[in-house]
Order: sequence, then C-alpha cells, then structure tokens
Amino acid sequence: MVMPATFAGLGFQSDPTAHQPIYLQLTVALSDAIRAGRIAVGARLPSERLYAQYLGVSRTTVTAAYHELKAMGLVRGYVGRGAVVIADDPDRAPAGTVPWALLASRLARPAQPSSTATDPALISFGDGWLHPSLTPSAALAAAAATAVEDPQVLIEAAQIFGLPVLREALIDVLRANGVRTTLSEVLITGGAQQGLNVVARALISPGDAVVCESPTWHGAFRAFRAAGAEVAGVAMDREGVDPDALEDALVRLRPKFVYLIPTFHCPTGRLLSLERRRRILEICARFRTPIVESHVYGDIVFGERLPSLKGLDAAGIVIHQGSASKTISPALRLGWLVAPRAVMNLLASAKASLDLSTPALTQAVLNGFLRSGAYARHLPPFRAELQARRDALLAALAVHCPDLRCVAPQGGLYLWAQLPKPLRAHEVEAAAAYEGVSVRGGEAFLPDGGTSSHIRLCYAAPALDEIAAGAQRLGKALRTLRQRHGDPAARAASFASV
Amino acid sequence: MVMPATFAGLGFQSDPTAHQPIYLQLTVALSDAIRAGRIAVGARLPSERLYAQYLGVSRTTVTAAYHELKAMGLVRGYVGRGAVVIADDPDRAPAGTVPWALLASRLARPAQPSSTATDPALISFGDGWLHPSLTPSAALAAAAATAVEDPQVLIEAAQIFGLPVLREALIDVLRANGVRTTLSEVLITGGAQQGLNVVARALISPGDAVVCESPTWHGAFRAFRAAGAEVAGVAMDREGVDPDALEDALVRLRPKFVYLIPTFHCPTGRLLSLERRRRILEICARFRTPIVESHVYGDIVFGERLPSLKGLDAAGIVIHQGSASKTISPALRLGWLVAPRAVMNLLASAKASLDLSTPALTQAVLNGFLRSGAYARHLPPFRAELQARRDALLAALAVHCPDLRCVAPQGGLYLWAQLPKPLRAHEVEAAAAYEGVSVRGGEAFLPDGGTSSHIRLCYAAPALDEIAAGAQRLGKALRTLRQRHGDPAARAASFASV
Repeated sequence: MVMPATFAGLGFQSDPTAHQPIYLQLTVALSDAIRAGRIAVGARLPSERLYAQYLGVSRTTVTAAYHELKAMGLVRGYVGRGAVVIADDPDRAPAGTVPWALLASRLARPAQPSSTATDPALISFGDGWLHPSLTPSAALAAAAATAVEDPQVLIEAAQIFGLPVLREALIDVLRANGVRTTLSEVLITGGAQQGLNVVARALISPGDAVVCESPTWHGAFRAFRAAGAEVAGVAMDREGVDPDALEDALVRLRPKFVYLIPTFHCPTGRLLSLERRRRILEICARFRTPIVESHVYGDIVFGERLPSLKGLDAAGIVIHQGSASKTISPALRLGWLVAPRAVMNLLASAKASLDLSTPALTQAVLNGFLRSGAYARHLPPFRAELQARRDALLAALAVHCPDLRCVAPQGGLYLWAQLPKPLRAHEVEAAAAYEGVSVRGGEAFLPDGGTSSHIRLCYAAPALDEIAAGAQRLGKALRTLRQRHGDPAARAASFASV
Repeated sequence: MVMPATFAGLGFQSDPTAHQPIYLQLTVALSDAIRAGRIAVGARLPSERLYAQYLGVSRTTVTAAYHELKAMGLVRGYVGRGAVVIADDPDRAPAGTVPWALLASRLARPAQPSSTATDPALISFGDGWLHPSLTPSAALAAAAATAVEDPQVLIEAAQIFGLPVLREALIDVLRANGVRTTLSEVLITGGAQQGLNVVARALISPGDAVVCESPTWHGAFRAFRAAGAEVAGVAMDREGVDPDALEDALVRLRPKFVYLIPTFHCPTGRLLSLERRRRILEICARFRTPIVESHVYGDIVFGERLPSLKGLDAAGIVIHQGSASKTISPALRLGWLVAPRAVMNLLASAKASLDLSTPALTQAVLNGFLRSGAYARHLPPFRAELQARRDALLAALAVHCPDLRCVAPQGGLYLWAQLPKPLRAHEVEAAAAYEGVSVRGGEAFLPDGGTSSHIRLCYAAPALDEIAAGAQRLGKALRTLRQRHGDPAARAASFASV
C-alpha cells in the first residue's frame, strides 16, 4: 500500500472517544494541513479506499471528510476520482456561502455515515434492530388493515398523551410486567429514543448532572447532553451497576436523575440482580432522586424474570419506559413513558415542544395488535428464536473467534464480547467492516469516553443463516489485527486459514 | 361572586409574559401563602369555577394548580369538591417522594392544559389545526389502504432521512413551489415542529443567539430555547419583518441563524413582500448567516403567490421546512427539511438523536397520496373553502365584534385581530374561553415576552357553521370585559344585546 509522503506525514490518529466524529477529526486535520501549506495546492487526494485502509478507518469516513473539504472550498473535482487541493482564498469563496461545519452545535455529534445503509453485502451484528423475519408481520398486517378503516386516525391528530385506547391496552401489558398504573400516567412517545428526549427536556437545566451506567446506550447520553446535562457513568460488574458506586455518584454529583437499563442492559446484556434493584430504589428514594428506567428489553427473557424497578417502586420515584421496537417492530416508532401523575404535565409539555404528538395511525396499529392477543402469542416463539440465535452466535464465535470472551446473556438482544489484548474496540469495528461484518465498538457506549476492549454483537439483526458467516468474517478481522500487532500465534493461524 | 377574604387578600396577578405558566404561578402563590400561614391549615379552597372567574384565568388553570398543591402534600381531599389545606409537615411526607415540580428544567414551560380538549362545547378559533372536514379524507383512506399492503412499512424502520420514494415525490411538490432540490437534500421529520428541534440540535450551542420575527410561532422559540439559545424578536409591519431591523439584530446579536415564516406568517397571516425577501437574502448572505424558513402555509394562497426564500436563494443559505399538517392532515405528523448538502449530515445526526427515524407507514400514506395526484386535486377546493371561511369570519366579526381591527389575510389559516383599548390579549383569551370560544392571546407568540393587544383566530379549526356563533360568543366576552374596564358604550351595548 503506497501513501503519498504528504499524507503519510500528517500522522493523523483518530480519537474515537472525542466528541467530534472521526470524519470531522480527519476534516480538521486535512484542512489545517492545507491552510498551513503542509499539503500543497495542486496535490491530489489519495483514493478513499487506500486512505481508509491506511488510517484504519471506514471508507465512508474518508469520503465524508473529502466532501466536507469540498464544501469548505479547499478541494475541487470529483471526490473518488482524484480531487485536487485548491488555494484557500476567501475572496474566491462565493460571498454568501454559509460555512455549515463551522456553525455546528458544540453539543452535536454528527453520526458516522452508517456502513450498513450503503453496503447490503455487510452482515450486521452492529445495529440493535430486529431482523424482519423476527417481527410478527402477519398480525401487524392484519392490525394495520383494520386500523386504516377508521378515518379518524388519518385526519385527526392524536392527543399529546397519545390515543387513550392504546394507553389502556398498554396498562394490561404493563400489569403483566408487575407495573400497576392508570391512564393518566402513560404517555406515548415516538420510540423510546424520543422518550429520553422528553424526560431530558422536562427535567434537565443546562449544567445539571445525570448519572447512568457505564457503558450504556449512547442515544441516552447524547439526548441528555443535548439538553445541557453533564453525564457521568457508574461502573458495572456482572450483576449490573454497583449500588455503592451509584450512591457515591449521588453524593458527589447530586444528579437531576439516574438513568438505568436494569433488564438485559444495552450494550452488556446484563440483568441487575433483585437485591441490587431493592438497594438502588432505597438509595435513590433516600436522596429523593428520580430513576429513569429503560425497560425496552424486559419482555425478551430466556430464563429468570425479575420485576422492573417500577414494579418495586413504592415511593413513586421511577419513570419507566417501554418500546415496541425491540419486541414487535422498529417500524412503528412507538414507545411509552409511565410516570407518577405529578410529573405528567411536565412530560406532556416537553413532548408537545418536540413534535406536538405521535401519529394516530401507528398507535392504532399497535393497539389492534395488542388487543387481538397477537402479542401474547408472539412472545414465546420470538423468545425461542432469539435464544436459538444467541446460541448460534456463541457456537460460531467459539469456532471462529476463540479468543473472544463472553457470558451468555439471559435475555435481550446483545452479546458483549471482550477482546484479546492488545486489541482496541474501535480498530476491531473498522477491521470487521472491512471484512464485511458490522459490530459496535465499546467506545460508543462510554458516557465518559475512553478506550474499550469490548464489542457489542446483536444477534437479532442479521438473517439467522448469516450468523456463522458473520462470525467467520469477524474471526478473520481479529486475526489480521493481531498479526498487525505482531502476535506470532495469530500470524500462524492466519496462514493456516488461507 | 363571593371570595373568602383569605384568597381575595392574596392579590394574585397572573403574568402571561413570564416563562412560568399561569397555573404554576398560581401554585407558587398559594403554596407560599400556605407555608407562610396566610392561608390557614383547615381552610377550604374556593371552587375552581368561582376562583377562575375571580382571577380572570381559565378554570383548567385553577384545577391544575390545585392538583399541584395536592401533589405537593399541601392539600387533601377531592379537588373540585372542597379540598382542604393541610399542614406542610416535611416529616409527614413519605421519605422517598420525589418533589417533581422542584425538579423541572428551568427551560421547561409546561403547557397549559388545553381547554379545547376538555370541553367539546367550546368553539375553537384557538388551535392551528384543520377541521377534519377540510382534510382530503377519501384520498387519504385510499392511500392508506394501499400503503398497508406493503409489509415492509410495518416491519422495517425507515432510514434516518426518510423513505426515498416520499422524498422523491416531495421534490416534485417543491418544484411547483420554485424550489429545485435533490434527494440528498431532503430529510423527513415528525411534523414541522420536530424539524425545528432538528435544526436547533444541529446548530445551537448553549448561549447562541437566534433571531426571529416578533410575534412568531411559540413552538419555534420554545424549541430553540430548549437547545440553549437566547431568542430575540424583530419587529414586523404589514409587509412582514423589517429588513433594516433584521440587519441591526444581526450586527448586535450575531445569531447562529434567523428563523422566519415569510409566507402567511403565524400568528399574523402576513406575506413578506418580494422586495423584502430579496433584501433579507442579501443581508443574511453578506453575514453568512443561515435562514430557517418555515413554509408550512405556502400552498394555502388566495391571491398573489410569491417565491419562497429557498426559491430565491442563490447562495445556499436557506434551510426550508414544509409540512403536511396544514394542507393535508395533521394526523400524519409529517414535515420535511430541505437544506444544502453540506449541512445534511448534521441534521441527520440531530434527527437520529431525537427519535432515530419517522414511521415508514405514515410516510407511505403521504407518498401514495402525492403520487395519486390527489394533492393537486385537493388544493383548489381546499383554498376556496378556506377563503370562504376567512370571509365568513370577517363578516361575523364585523357584526358581533365591530371594534376588532383586522386585515384580511391573502392566505394561510389565521386572522390577527387588534383589540380595542384597554383590553389585553390574555384577559380576552380567558373571557372568551369562559363564554365558550377559544382564541389565542398574542402574548403566547412574543419571543421577548410583554403584553399584547392582538388575538389570533384560526378560521380552519371550527366547523364552518360554528364560525358565526363563535364570533358572537367572542363579542359577548369583549363587551363584558369592556364593561369591567368601565367603558360606558360597552355597557350600553351589553344591555342592548340581552
């Protein structure tokens, strides 16, 4: 692989823990070099493929950076066919052009262009979505055919709180989870992700602290930070988050609320023990600090079923959130918040300022689905299928990636795999994408940044018959990386597998 | 009307310009009085109806305040049937209870419970929604019946940017509005309101300034403030916002962007002149300041049609937003952003962090509706019907509210009526609600707060045959208020109308 000295000499190192995405880090490095004359006017940019390989980042990252440079007026010509560096002459930029990249919110963290969207040949363990074969498509189609017969759902906006019939149907689902609630305590949201934004907007003032598990769902701390929060993580072990460390964080940071995923946690798949659930409720009640409980994986249980925090919450301190995305279909974009009556007006106001209300049509589809009994019929085979996928992935990893260490999760969608030393998660993510399989590096889930030696594998996302091939590709990526790190055992294994 | 001396003596005055909603202002006044002993333990709260009338606020405001007092443990018994003040003894509050009202974000502005939702007998000019009879319900039903035949839309989440087929269909709608764009410049949002939050999250850092018209859509400045912006308004006249004042604001505040509703502005219904459109584009291009253009009323045009700012934007500084809510149906909860390629990744990332994506099902319904030609067929009768409603409202106001002054809008949904002196908008809103008709007081639309002598009347919201009765009720409210203000002419008119 030949890299022009100009570009090799830049010594660019991506920092996956920075708030800025890698493509913007690269954009800044290149534009600085062009402006400082370290890359000469007239120089030709290396091909995206070559440069991506050289830097150990994805090709889409390089492409995105090149497009930014073009938008900034530093590069001319077709990206991908030898774009050329041009002079950074402000007089030559059109007078009114807006320098969008310079205007980005400092809280914004632009998403990396998703490699899955652009490459259908990729086998995906990276996304937290259900493969379409896992969704109860026939029952959803029947519910949808009925829903569209009611003209109201097409012409009248739903109330801020959502359709009363759906909220009523959810009360039954919640009761099965040990949560007793009433109509006035349920608010429908555009998926659980919007629910996090609703809570953030209702409760967070700029500068407030929020405490969560570390690692945790990155969409949560992104939403909290966008509302101005300082987010801090609390360490976890096999039993979930550590209550003592949580209490220390409450003392030290006085957070506005605590965000937890106690049941089949994302990304680790862990189940917070019953004893810890009780202790954490006691601690937070003592501090009069609310808990926002994400329970979106609660119904995907293979073994022991524990009550949710909300089900154990005698003091009324828990805002509980559920979702249809992880158990029924991500296409509906429906979630719900269950919260004490006294906070509902605040939540409704935040919901209104986010998008006024959730579509009535999708709510009617979910309502029909739930009331037909389809959910109760769907869950047992769905759980069995996911358990079979979990087992298939564990078996394939044992064959193809024997040096990954992981514990079999007892529910949920994720396997949390520890990498052999000295591999870092973000380089595994890049190498795996290069080999045609997506995984999520653990760095993405760290609220406080830092490096990670774990990757998250979602066994729900790929087609069932792709799981083994995906593990094989991941194995190849791991061997290549260990070779590059100079591990002789890996090098021998790599030759053997050719 | 008899008011117990304790409550009469509180001298509570609502401040509609405060960030805190009136019901919370009242809650604070009452809880302070209880804690200070000015309202004794054992005192009975006045009935909501009586107290609302006495204070000149809506009954729902009083009810909401009473519920807050109950949640705070200061009041016991059934609200509405003589709740009683109890001792504020912290030792008696359950140890773990969370004081939710104390935890509210200082950026949050809880919505007033909407009076329309609770009282079906109310005639509504207050909401900015289409009456269901104005929606093309048959064509929507046909599009929905077709949409649900595609199982994909029920089981696969749409991409962050939205369904490509819909974005393609919107390109044609936009072309008819003089906006030439491409697939990669269109992002689907959960209504225009979410679009405002997408832009805010992408561009606003806490402390940034945003400049908008004054008055303007309150959902916009609420969304910008929730992202940490300082929002400032620029005065308008009959031709729309004043370009010189806008340039002064750019110099003084250096805003991150300017938010404008140039075409049939909310709440004033005004149309920014072509000359001003050109000047404002020139000014903002010179300052390299983006314009966020809300164009949600652009297709509701009775007379002259002017190009949108986006249609005139040679420099690429405009982020344009449209919506299906004001012309097709508010139930779909669909809007779109059209923006320069260079800012799309930022917008997509913000969209992802808000709710990952918009439902595919509602997008498929709108796509089918647009592609069937139904939109083109819908618009002419829709415009004619709205124009007839506008005329019916103007005629009814001339009879029943002769001292309101208003200019006939040339499009859009709103009539902006100036009140006779010394009436203030918020007292008219309360008095009108008491008489059974909802209007929106101008205070709600003032980004910088203050009092208003205007009310917004939406002629799209009520049933056509309720318009005259609504104007009659409003006339009664105006006469009663003028009487209370001691206007002898009004008193005479009031007796005459009995």
